[in-house]
Amino acid sequence: MQKLTTIRLTDGNPQMLEVIDQRFLPHQLIWHPLNDFRQTDTAIKEMIVRGAPLIGVTAAYGCYLASLEFNGDRVKILEAASILRESRPTAINLMWAIDKVVEVVNSTSEVEMTLALLNLANDIKNQDIETCFKIGQHGLPLIEEIYNRKQSTVNILTHCNAGWLGCVDWGTATSPIYQAHLKGIPVHVWVDETRPRNQGFNLTAWELTQRGVPHTLVVDNTGGHLMQHGLVDICFVGTDRTTIKGDVANKIGTYLKALAAFDNHIPFYACVPMSSIDFTIEDGINQIPIEMRHQDEVKYIQGLDEKSGNITQILLTPSTSLAANYGFDVTPARLITAIITENGIFKTDEIEGLR
Amino acid sequence: MQKLTTIRLTDGNPQMLEVIDQRFLPHQLIWHPLNDFRQTDTAIKEMIVRGAPLIGVTAAYGCYLASLEFNGDRVKILEAASILRESRPTAINLMWAIDKVVEVVNSTSEVEMTLALLNLANDIKNQDIETCFKIGQHGLPLIEEIYNRKQSTVNILTHCNAGWLGCVDWGTATSPIYQAHLKGIPVHVWVDETRPRNQGFNLTAWELTQRGVPHTLVVDNTGGHLMQHGLVDICFVGTDRTTIKGDVANKIGTYLKALAAFDNHIPFYACVPMSSIDFTIEDGINQIPIEMRHQDEVKYIQGLDEKSGNITQILLTPSTSLAANYGFDVTPARLITAIITENGIFKTDEIEGLR
Repeated sequence: MQKLTTIRLTDGNPQMLEVIDQRFLPHQLIWHPLNDFRQTDTAIKEMIVRGAPLIGVTAAYGCYLASLEFNGDRVKILEAASILRESRPTAINLMWAIDKVVEVVNSTSEVEMTLALLNLANDIKNQDIETCFKIGQHGLPLIEEIYNRKQSTVNILTHCNAGWLGCVDWGTATSPIYQAHLKGIPVHVWVDETRPRNQGFNLTAWELTQRGVPHTLVVDNTGGHLMQHGLVDICFVGTDRTTIKGDVANKIGTYLKALAAFDNHIPFYACVPMSSIDFTIEDGINQIPIEMRHQDEVKYIQGLDEKSGNITQILLTPSTSLAANYGFDVTPARLITAIITENGIFKTDEIEGLR
Repeated sequence: MQKLTTIRLTDGNPQMLEVIDQRFLPHQLIWHPLNDFRQTDTAIKEMIVRGAPLIGVTAAYGCYLASLEFNGDRVKILEAASILRESRPTAINLMWAIDKVVEVVNSTSEVEMTLALLNLANDIKNQDIETCFKIGQHGLPLIEEIYNRKQSTVNILTHCNAGWLGCVDWGTATSPIYQAHLKGIPVHVWVDETRPRNQGFNLTAWELTQRGVPHTLVVDNTGGHLMQHGLVDICFVGTDRTTIKGDVANKIGTYLKALAAFDNHIPFYACVPMSSIDFTIEDGINQIPIEMRHQDEVKYIQGLDEKSGNITQILLTPSTSLAANYGFDVTPARLITAIITENGIFKTDEIEGLR
């Protein structure tokens, strides 16, 4: 059986696309068809797909679908590309993928267009898989070294979902874990719930289950206690943006776990594709704007009503109380042991040299 | 209008009891009648009432109800008392209240029994109100001092519910806040959700709403970010047990907030009734056993289905994933600015002298 990845070409000629509909995880695995570029646009907008790398890959395939639909018509494909560029305005990989598309569209004849765009999308996809794989290769020895020392299961804590569901395969923070697991090193993952959107329980727990990696779910409050009691050997987290000085912006709550890791002398690594390093800023706390999202993501939560079998949303709070919903926080470089990129592991004071 | 408290005597002769049914908060305010000692036992067992002080008070009233029912029959009342003692085996205030009851039962004639037990229950209740009030009186100047310095709203973070819903009135961690609010000092409370049982959203948000205290709900991941950005002036938390060296056991997640407060030079106070200091232990992390609760409290959550109007429970996780549910953590004394008791504010190295 081929292992699941987030996006796949269907059989047939021409080839269409399918993506895992992430809105129904972890309760239902539904493949969502992408038959034209509008459906791709909707899939990104409605968060059927999410995660910066996966959004970039999906948009690139969307441009291939536009070329199929419009028989390589350059003007119409460029129109589709600019619509896709707006589908999630803050995703850096989306901009990057669409820039690549525009380059190809402008330098390719209309008869060769569809194949050229399919090749480009495949390249972008394969490049993401390669980046994630390499992050895992560089992170793997850290887990191996702990295993060699303790000769028992290596306990790893992660926050949010920096897994294959946000990419195509491997993920970033999860890549060293999957590679250790495949190598037969006994690993166990503490999965933070990651309120308010619960990406840990919805996505990370589900994708670890798919690949048979032992794990235990904990609420976001638990990590400190686990670390105080020697139940965490190492932490791996992802990042949305890392500064030149090594401040790491990631899902809200990452900073609290980094504080606990530091207080308990536990290594804390950020898994950072080179593309997510922002060489233009130094001070993450003061220079990275933190997205404020809608309060209803805090006040309501979605899950499976086992009685009806329906995915249901319920209110968790007094209806009149207001909620604040900060999407990310910044972990200062002094709390980060090192960053793991596709090019190797670097201390935060070495990042400047990677420019 | 008389302000709400958690338990009240009904009019009529003889007087019966009513308690707020906390299982339905924050969605419905339902007064639950206690007409005999069995109903009291059930109310404690089923967590219709919760919070150590309130459990003690409720059990004492339960013995009064037993005396009414059994016409002061000493043997039957002692039987009822020993049943009530088992209703929540770990609540220290419950043991203490039942000990008091047994003392009164053994030293009172059967004709005077019912009145004596009513008086005792009223005394226990009033003593709890007094303890909470005094904690607030000692904590109030801390808020006042911040207000005098900044001349704008004082932002206070609290975790879980150490409020009047766990006591009779005032609460412990909330008492300084209510007293500042009543004095006209502008306060604003950041209310941590407090997964997995959501006491922050269910209880603290609701009780602050009842008394008109401005507040904003945040998920447990948020406190560090708020503190990094100057949005928290002071933290007040409760405690389940505090050691002689000042290690504070409290709801899971308290330690993470204390780390963030320390990292950002924000004062972090534990509000500690003298009765919750355990003078027999020093090292909280190694000597306080942490309750492991059922994993379903993590995997499922309860809220209001606005479509049906029903309070509904939903599954948040893959059905096969296991969860760990640690109820408490221990914040080491080095992170605690001071403790606030009914007898005054003490540095953690002064606790030993209070013995």
